[in-house]
Amino acid sequence: MLLNCDMGEAFGAWKMGQDDLIMPFVNQANIACGFHASDPLIMSKTVALAKQHGVSVGAHPGFPDLVGFGRRRMDIAPDELKALVQYQVGALQGICQAHGVSLDYVKPHGALYNMMAFDSKMLATVMQAVAEISSSLPLMVMAVPEREEIEALAKEHNVPVLFEAFADRLYTAEGRLTPRSQANAVHRSVDLIEQQVLGLLKEGKVTTETGSVLQVKADSICIHGDNPHALDAVKRARAIL
Amino acid sequence: MLLNCDMGEAFGAWKMGQDDLIMPFVNQANIACGFHASDPLIMSKTVALAKQHGVSVGAHPGFPDLVGFGRRRMDIAPDELKALVQYQVGALQGICQAHGVSLDYVKPHGALYNMMAFDSKMLATVMQAVAEISSSLPLMVMAVPEREEIEALAKEHNVPVLFEAFADRLYTAEGRLTPRSQANAVHRSVDLIEQQVLGLLKEGKVTTETGSVLQVKADSICIHGDNPHALDAVKRARAIL
Amino acid sequence: MLLNCDMGEAFGAWKMGQDDLIMPFVNQANIACGFHASDPLIMSKTVALAKQHGVSVGAHPGFPDLVGFGRRRMDIAPDELKALVQYQVGALQGICQAHGVSLDYVKPHGALYNMMAFDSKMLATVMQAVAEISSSLPLMVMAVPEREEIEALAKEHNVPVLFEAFADRLYTAEGRLTPRSQANAVHRSVDLIEQQVLGLLKEGKVTTETGSVLQVKADSICIHGDNPHALDAVKRARAIL
Amino acid sequence: MLLNCDMGEAFGAWKMGQDDLIMPFVNQANIACGFHASDPLIMSKTVALAKQHGVSVGAHPGFPDLVGFGRRRMDIAPDELKALVQYQVGALQGICQAHGVSLDYVKPHGALYNMMAFDSKMLATVMQAVAEISSSLPLMVMAVPEREEIEALAKEHNVPVLFEAFADRLYTAEGRLTPRSQANAVHRSVDLIEQQVLGLLKEGKVTTETGSVLQVKADSICIHGDNPHALDAVKRARAIL
Repeated sequence: MLLNCDMGEAFGAWKMGQDDLIMPFVNQANIACGFHASDPLIMSKTVALAKQHGVSVGAHPGFPDLVGFGRRRMDIAPDELKALVQYQVGALQGICQAHGVSLDYVKPHGALYNMMAFDSKMLATVMQAVAEISSSLPLMVMAVPEREEIEALAKEHNVPVLFEAFADRLYTAEGRLTPRSQANAVHRSVDLIEQQVLGLLKEGKVTTETGSVLQVKADSICIHGDNPHALDAVKRARAIL
Repeated sequence: MLLNCDMGEAFGAWKMGQDDLIMPFVNQANIACGFHASDPLIMSKTVALAKQHGVSVGAHPGFPDLVGFGRRRMDIAPDELKALVQYQVGALQGICQAHGVSLDYVKPHGALYNMMAFDSKMLATVMQAVAEISSSLPLMVMAVPEREEIEALAKEHNVPVLFEAFADRLYTAEGRLTPRSQANAVHRSVDLIEQQVLGLLKEGKVTTETGSVLQVKADSICIHGDNPHALDAVKRARAIL
Repeated sequence: MLLNCDMGEAFGAWKMGQDDLIMPFVNQANIACGFHASDPLIMSKTVALAKQHGVSVGAHPGFPDLVGFGRRRMDIAPDELKALVQYQVGALQGICQAHGVSLDYVKPHGALYNMMAFDSKMLATVMQAVAEISSSLPLMVMAVPEREEIEALAKEHNVPVLFEAFADRLYTAEGRLTPRSQANAVHRSVDLIEQQVLGLLKEGKVTTETGSVLQVKADSICIHGDNPHALDAVKRARAIL
Repeated sequence: MLLNCDMGEAFGAWKMGQDDLIMPFVNQANIACGFHASDPLIMSKTVALAKQHGVSVGAHPGFPDLVGFGRRRMDIAPDELKALVQYQVGALQGICQAHGVSLDYVKPHGALYNMMAFDSKMLATVMQAVAEISSSLPLMVMAVPEREEIEALAKEHNVPVLFEAFADRLYTAEGRLTPRSQANAVHRSVDLIEQQVLGLLKEGKVTTETGSVLQVKADSICIHGDNPHALDAVKRARAIL
């Protein structure tokens, strides 16, 4: 089980996260690609930081919405969506090349990520986008209960898939993320995060907002870098893993 | 002698140029990368069009200035400049990969292009940016009289260089482009453009704004797609070449 | 019955519409405010043009989505929506002040306009946004069959309302605009546009996509400036009115 | 002598400064207008905060350069510059109207501010921009040694002027700000800031980077909100004033 974290979420003069402190503890860095966060220089510095710590680099493409941090739903036509994923993946790949680092996977961000988890047409479009760039480039998606449907779709589109679970987010009974508009959507307690990591690791299970227990089989666990307890949570998760 | 043209300069709902009509007549398409013009979908369509006509694809990165079309000078620090070139080149490269097309060269746009032609430090930064992505990716620069200095710099930075001349722009006596703020900067007559192409091709010479004659040894000739006579000019140049 | 047209929809180096030709024929110019189209200089030139022809100026605020021309649905929280309407209205008002021209009304654009026509909470937010700026500044909305509900809401929020009908757009049976994703959404025939204007003017009626006839009582008729027949259509409508 | 501070410099999800803590101690809040920092919602919240503390609101327009925080020089033509100042001033004014607050002055930001302090043509353009909006709206400029030239220019353009000095920035011998590219440009010591405030207040003098002493007669003193010691510095300055 790997540990991944969203990184490079600063923008221009504005800071976000604690990449320097967190990078040593994760296996995979999902690096923002300039549409919802980050800019070319921040991307370059973040790739350099990942390289320094031997952390795998993933592209973290999002909607073209800096003000909304890519968290607002947008109606984007499939051909536009495909192109904007390829653009962002390519942009980070260019910067990776400049650092002699490989781009290892693609994990969509925010509203795009969440919409894909409900909309199989949209998911298919993103799969196609990634597969066209390289058939050996994996797409990281949410480990939802409909795992087999996703695996079938991925096979059809010839894209490897990585499944991820969330350590610091509440789950709905349907196995999706509780929307951030709800107060309890993000776990604010490190103990709760640790408990969720343990549940995922030992039993492949997570307790949802209704109290139901859900089976979640994942390849990687995500902790959000903008969580106020991100550093502690990452350290504890690292220790467990 | 090849013929190149700036392409993919539309943006969202806004049109520019006549790419469909011009593409069949050129050898190299300099495709805008989203910072001064274009967007991911337009880039994807333009790469597809170039592929259809067997035209070589070059990245045309510019300053982050859509409103100013990348034609306004900006003070950008070297590390930012390097990163924004690599970002844009990578972005187009990602879209090229999706179309199974190679990215063949990099030609900076607008104010960036012009500033590089005067500022060897800035030129060196751009050379470094391109060389870090791939040591076999050529940088297209203006065929200025100081050719040897450029070749020496390129050798130092391990980047292949392509030199280009302009068919539809007036030259200063120093062998740079007359700024667009001057009324006569862009040739509005197809005959004048044809004459400049002939001069470049047969004698390697161009007549400057002062009437002086300048030696210009180029690998490729550029005609701007936003010239009102672009299509006629491209057809005549094609016939000559 | 007045005639209104969306104006100032160019952006930077990109042109759109034929404002110079159309302005003499309309009563009201809905001027884009920089979020979905236009920029400060284009807004300033468009206000000057309206002033020259004695045309009333309205703010035409849209979603923050240049690439999508403000036509893509976005999920924007009410407080953000209110602020972005006030920002755009204020921006155009500042430019109007500089030209000694009054800002006469506000007409939302694109997806914002269409979403408001279905969502009374969103409509209420926009009403509040406008009323807070000035209780004498009218909001222009679509003349939908639910006119009385809108008037009641407007009274509650203390905002004057102008109702508008569309000359060049197909209507659904519910009295909304047929989405642009449908091929027949925009009338491409000047005769059809003329006929719709005549119907609106003489009988206050419009024929919908199902063939049903709808009563539409409007204060102003809109013709879109990006319609290929905009100029002809505007001239004919002017002649009729 | 008044105390002013740049405020509302957050952007979307990104924080900057400590507006909540600093607002109670200043007289004038220079509020960013969305081109180099801030967004409509942040502007609205910042105006509300200023209103709550009875702080005077000024527009803080900047270059259209979010990534560069408006601190990078850009070549902007005079008509564009005038329009973009009027756009931003109008935008904040619209939001002020919505809060029932007056807009009291205009203070340009960053590279625009600094370029104006050297370039009287640019200064004249900005004066014209502000005067066209309202002849009673003051422009805040740097209290440079050439005060009389500025007063003459302001009289010519019919714009009231406020002069400001800086508490936390090093001065060049010519009475301009030491560029931020120099390590000592920003005072990192609260004692040094206090000393500069005292010098400005009691003697109207400031010690420059060469050790020379300069006479600086100002109406208002600025402390930057992004200074790490901003809060302490503002409290001490407040106590002194």
